[in-house]
Amino acid sequence: MIIDCHGHYTTAPPAHDAWRDAQKAAFKEGTAPPPYPVISDDEIRETIEKNQLRLLKERGADMTIFSPRASAMAHHIGDEGVSKAWTRAANNLIKRVVDLYPETFFGVCQLPQSPGVPIANSVEELERCVTELGFVGCNLNPDPSGGHFTAPPLIDRSWYPFYEKMVELDVPAMIHVSGSCNPVFHATGAYYISADTTAFMQFIQGDLFKDFPTLRFIIPHGGGAVPYHWGRYRGLADMLKQPPLASHVMKNVYFDTCVYHQPGIDLLFEVIDLDNILFGSEMVGAVRGIDPETGHYFDDTKRYVDALDLTDEQRRQVYEGNARRVYPRLDAQLKERGL
Amino acid sequence: MIIDCHGHYTTAPPAHDAWRDAQKAAFKEGTAPPPYPVISDDEIRETIEKNQLRLLKERGADMTIFSPRASAMAHHIGDEGVSKAWTRAANNLIKRVVDLYPETFFGVCQLPQSPGVPIANSVEELERCVTELGFVGCNLNPDPSGGHFTAPPLIDRSWYPFYEKMVELDVPAMIHVSGSCNPVFHATGAYYISADTTAFMQFIQGDLFKDFPTLRFIIPHGGGAVPYHWGRYRGLADMLKQPPLASHVMKNVYFDTCVYHQPGIDLLFEVIDLDNILFGSEMVGAVRGIDPETGHYFDDTKRYVDALDLTDEQRRQVYEGNARRVYPRLDAQLKERGL
Repeated sequence: MIIDCHGHYTTAPPAHDAWRDAQKAAFKEGTAPPPYPVISDDEIRETIEKNQLRLLKERGADMTIFSPRASAMAHHIGDEGVSKAWTRAANNLIKRVVDLYPETFFGVCQLPQSPGVPIANSVEELERCVTELGFVGCNLNPDPSGGHFTAPPLIDRSWYPFYEKMVELDVPAMIHVSGSCNPVFHATGAYYISADTTAFMQFIQGDLFKDFPTLRFIIPHGGGAVPYHWGRYRGLADMLKQPPLASHVMKNVYFDTCVYHQPGIDLLFEVIDLDNILFGSEMVGAVRGIDPETGHYFDDTKRYVDALDLTDEQRRQVYEGNARRVYPRLDAQLKERGL
Repeated sequence: MIIDCHGHYTTAPPAHDAWRDAQKAAFKEGTAPPPYPVISDDEIRETIEKNQLRLLKERGADMTIFSPRASAMAHHIGDEGVSKAWTRAANNLIKRVVDLYPETFFGVCQLPQSPGVPIANSVEELERCVTELGFVGCNLNPDPSGGHFTAPPLIDRSWYPFYEKMVELDVPAMIHVSGSCNPVFHATGAYYISADTTAFMQFIQGDLFKDFPTLRFIIPHGGGAVPYHWGRYRGLADMLKQPPLASHVMKNVYFDTCVYHQPGIDLLFEVIDLDNILFGSEMVGAVRGIDPETGHYFDDTKRYVDALDLTDEQRRQVYEGNARRVYPRLDAQLKERGL
């Protein structure tokens, strides 16, 4: 069984995005947004079957842990109310995909974050998505300002109310920023990777996992720059008089395989313990083209993992076992189905 | 000949740093700073011979391209006048090191940048350092705000007056942020690497090197996250309908070898053309400890490069040839000495 831990609904029906535009315009004008449109199952089927589902099958994977389009979360737009309504709509749409393809898609929610608004206000939507919609995790945005990095570091106690709920529900969070409103940062080329790297360094600096021994984060995009600079991070932990990374951070932090070339995947598997790597592609996502050097899609990360010299057991771990361990609610749902 | 392209005077005499503290305090109080202290040659010798010079010899390198401590540039502190006076003092101190050890150290200057102040105001100090002090390059801070990323991207025309002077003087710039005043960013663990990565993505987005075909930048710390995500960047250039990276960016951009473990260096040399890699260690810098896995200093990057399967010619290129090509004023000084 091959589980892709990192998929976004980047191909949502146009009516969904049109409503978002109308919502933003209404906020600007100080009026009420229009009602959310009726979107048929067929419209959803078309966007999924032509894209994620087709590519999943073509590439030989089985399931995707699926969440709203990350770059469209845009927590910096509007206010808390705008973020809440948009988040609810985006999560409900994911739930419809999951219900249409229960064998393939498992839901992960976005959160109604908003700059300066306490993260405690996101607890309710997490709870709704997990307990009512059956979602298995969430995407936590460490910078709701959209590239101004005004929120406190993830080790700050202001995040704790949310972590407490994550622990209680036993769901992990993928740390994932959204679109950038800072012209310095290209979203998928600079902002994502910088935020990933920064989150990891914050975990080194603090003692978050002493306070929450069972809290689990996935740092996407192969852990940002971290595996490439693994020596730097081991050395910095040492300089900060923190314990070795294996015990200090890596019991709680996982990297996906969204690294779009073979040498990067080789490095990831060389330096990071296999227990900490979850298969992911972020397909259909940041990089949609075909690599002229290989003739294959850049984001067909399964090819790179398949090319590694792994035992069957190791392969099963990266493709399935680790995801089931990190997302216990996914594991429970699979077990219920005898899988 | 082995040239380390990335060294900072992180061990400057205490009187130099004490003056900086006094300068900052004076700014706060609205008074004039005290006069810059007298620092003897012996004081400078002691800080250099016990540290950079000792380690350089021990590790078997010959020369260092040497600049003021990057994290202490702190362009976000004070105002333009404060930055100018501090920068002048820091550069003059580098000049004294160069004069004391002309066979070993070659000067690179910091710039009197200040948030919101036009970069054109840094031209004068660049010119002074290059034409009067004999420096061979500069460190350009893409984010003088110290972690708030408020400056325009490096491809913005507001930077052009400075680039024009770089081209005229034929000196490269290392892109290097300073200390972070944003609690989100650990300076050497998150801020540096994020800024490196971000700069590279900006170069992909723009057409800067069409306007300045001979402009040259060194992106330090092994190019941030870029080599690890080389497929992502190749794919993003393609999605943005830019030319391939080899012609679009890599005729003008170079990475150093400040990557503190063997697998990272292996990856760097696997994906980046040898012409674009300059030997560097940033010693004595961010990571000063000994790697328990190897028993050697993390930042003894020469060991990692030596371990690569390179021909003598390739090794000479990385250790010497590329640096002489990217820093033509260094090359000219060496040639004058018959080297």
